[in-house]
Amino acid sequence: MEKKIITISREFGSGGRYIGEQVAKKLGMAYYDKDIIKKVAEESGLSKEFIEKKGEYSPAGKGFAYAFVGRDQTGASLEDYLYSLQRKIIIDIAKKESCVIVGRCADYILKDCQDCIDVFIHGNQEEKSERIQKLFEKTEKEAGKMMNQMDKKRSIHYKYYTDQNWGDARNYTLSLNSSVLGYDKCIHILADLAEGPM
Amino acid sequence: MEKKIITISREFGSGGRYIGEQVAKKLGMAYYDKDIIKKVAEESGLSKEFIEKKGEYSPAGKGFAYAFVGRDQTGASLEDYLYSLQRKIIIDIAKKESCVIVGRCADYILKDCQDCIDVFIHGNQEEKSERIQKLFEKTEKEAGKMMNQMDKKRSIHYKYYTDQNWGDARNYTLSLNSSVLGYDKCIHILADLAEGPM
Repeated sequence: MEKKIITISREFGSGGRYIGEQVAKKLGMAYYDKDIIKKVAEESGLSKEFIEKKGEYSPAGKGFAYAFVGRDQTGASLEDYLYSLQRKIIIDIAKKESCVIVGRCADYILKDCQDCIDVFIHGNQEEKSERIQKLFEKTEKEAGKMMNQMDKKRSIHYKYYTDQNWGDARNYTLSLNSSVLGYDKCIHILADLAEGPM
Repeated sequence: MEKKIITISREFGSGGRYIGEQVAKKLGMAYYDKDIIKKVAEESGLSKEFIEKKGEYSPAGKGFAYAFVGRDQTGASLEDYLYSLQRKIIIDIAKKESCVIVGRCADYILKDCQDCIDVFIHGNQEEKSERIQKLFEKTEKEAGKMMNQMDKKRSIHYKYYTDQNWGDARNYTLSLNSSVLGYDKCIHILADLAEGPM
């Protein structure tokens, strides 16, 4: 198999992370998600909690004031520093080996990469809600609130750092509705693509 | 094979129509594109030229004034009448048989249909431009202008009648970049999905 990088962006509750893991497992590829957090923590000295909280979800919830507070003399915030570190690590990983990278604007960071398959996994409200209720032991109402908050934050984070609209099909090689297609079919399509020539 | 309806939305120059035709041919399904124009013409008495021009591209280019001009006593314009006729025909077709339907907001019109696979085909600027130059004997500059105009019109038409954003991955079961994946791979993925259980 030629070197292939699969980047996965996903709606909260869509099973995108699970699908990515399974594709990596099936093809014997490296899988990067929490490992990126670990690498960033090692390089930066930032806490894993901070990286997890801010790595995909900043500057969510910040509006006009964000332009002025918490910035150093160059105008960069701690979140911008974190983004640039993640960016460097993602570029290094992609140079090294075939892998699956989940989240963190990897589709945009690697946009000139010829070996990349950029994927957006989304789903129907009902199926996503059921998954969240089960995984996090939440009520339907709580799951709905979590979905809205997480996707809104991811969307703002993505827009801020890429100036593209999160979830616009044109940013990705392919987009899949995991509720309609089922996880197994999504895994099959992605594994088949990664194994074939591009 | 169970009954399946494939709706195809596509960027201009992405080969979406060709991909739809080939999938229909491969699976022996009916294919509806120009046939819808013919059916609408028969039912309405409107000219095929008018239907072709307005069926996917109105009320493009019309702004605020559109709210007030060219409407009958019920507030409907000729374009709205055309949309409602196309809608009725698309619903009838989908009830009848397995088929591929290209354009005309069919994904939205059939949004409650359980047998539907809604597809958005898009592509890279360079490949789309080359296709348009070849098909329509245009210069690169002319092809670029055609792409922008056609996609802008389709996008406004879609927004007007569906209140959704054209090209947002979440409107479709799957979205495919035909420039990266290649037409054959897109045809293969869609035919495979249509043949399998949903």
